[in-house]
Amino acid sequence: MRPAITRLRAAAAGLGFAAVLVAGISASASAENAKDAPLASPIYGVTLPHGYRAWELIAPAQEAAPLDELRATLGNPTAIEAYREGKLPFPDGTVLVKLAWKHVPSPEFGPASVPGAATTVQVMVKDARRYAATGGWGFGRFVNGRPVDAAQHETCWGCHQSLVKDHDYVFTRYAP
Amino acid sequence: MRPAITRLRAAAAGLGFAAVLVAGISASASAENAKDAPLASPIYGVTLPHGYRAWELIAPAQEAAPLDELRATLGNPTAIEAYREGKLPFPDGTVLVKLAWKHVPSPEFGPASVPGAATTVQVMVKDARRYAATGGWGFGRFVNGRPVDAAQHETCWGCHQSLVKDHDYVFTRYAP
Repeated sequence: MRPAITRLRAAAAGLGFAAVLVAGISASASAENAKDAPLASPIYGVTLPHGYRAWELIAPAQEAAPLDELRATLGNPTAIEAYREGKLPFPDGTVLVKLAWKHVPSPEFGPASVPGAATTVQVMVKDARRYAATGGWGFGRFVNGRPVDAAQHETCWGCHQSLVKDHDYVFTRYAP
Repeated sequence: MRPAITRLRAAAAGLGFAAVLVAGISASASAENAKDAPLASPIYGVTLPHGYRAWELIAPAQEAAPLDELRATLGNPTAIEAYREGKLPFPDGTVLVKLAWKHVPSPEFGPASVPGAATTVQVMVKDARRYAATGGWGFGRFVNGRPVDAAQHETCWGCHQSLVKDHDYVFTRYAP
């Protein structure tokens, strides 16, 4: 079995990434790099939440070409409780994380497609006051544990605002 | 928001299902029905594990036509630890649950497909002694919380045995 779990994106996002830097270059310079690393998303200051990979599943999804991905949205306990009780809008403290992987054919079972390489991790954090200008939501889009640029983050709110206003700007529904 | 979580298959599988029966017909007859209901799979005697919907995600998957499904495999703590540590074979007590839903277009975002109606829940339980004749695995396939017939359960082992012998007869790999 390939040790897939050692490639956990969560590890790459935080101390794990710093450790790789430390191993690669001089300790003092790397500590400085890790400290200055832009781990929070531009515009929103959203970071990858600790331990998110162990959160409960809300639903899987598939994204067609050109992205061609399998996805899974996970939620923290506040998010899961909100879904369970049908709370809308989602309360402050709700955090949603959508993981995405390339969509590749299973080598072992013809009709199935399975996750290939990890692509993005996308985060939504509810804080009605801090993010009042964007429906109460802060957004973060991460590749290899690092946030993507501001231009990409500028597109989040417009799309969520126009397409899922009636579900508190959240696409994902709970898969029963 | 539709109260999707009230349709939780876990509820339909256990006491929730009995409660529906009780509400629908006379209490004494329904209690008898619930007691006699074949909630364990034929051949293997595998039941839907309590609380599985809250278990950690191992990986999502997609199944092409004719099934045309989105799927997600969840694991109990023993399963997750085995994946995390790369343990093969999986230890006794490992339980894997694969949830499946019809694969339907998102009404809100063109390129995406999302879970529709729930279809099956498939369970694998590792008990090397009890299931010695089938690689240590017991199988259960459930629709609306009820196990399907013996004929369908007779197909589980042959397919797992022939296709994924090198991964302890388990298809799903951990999605990082």
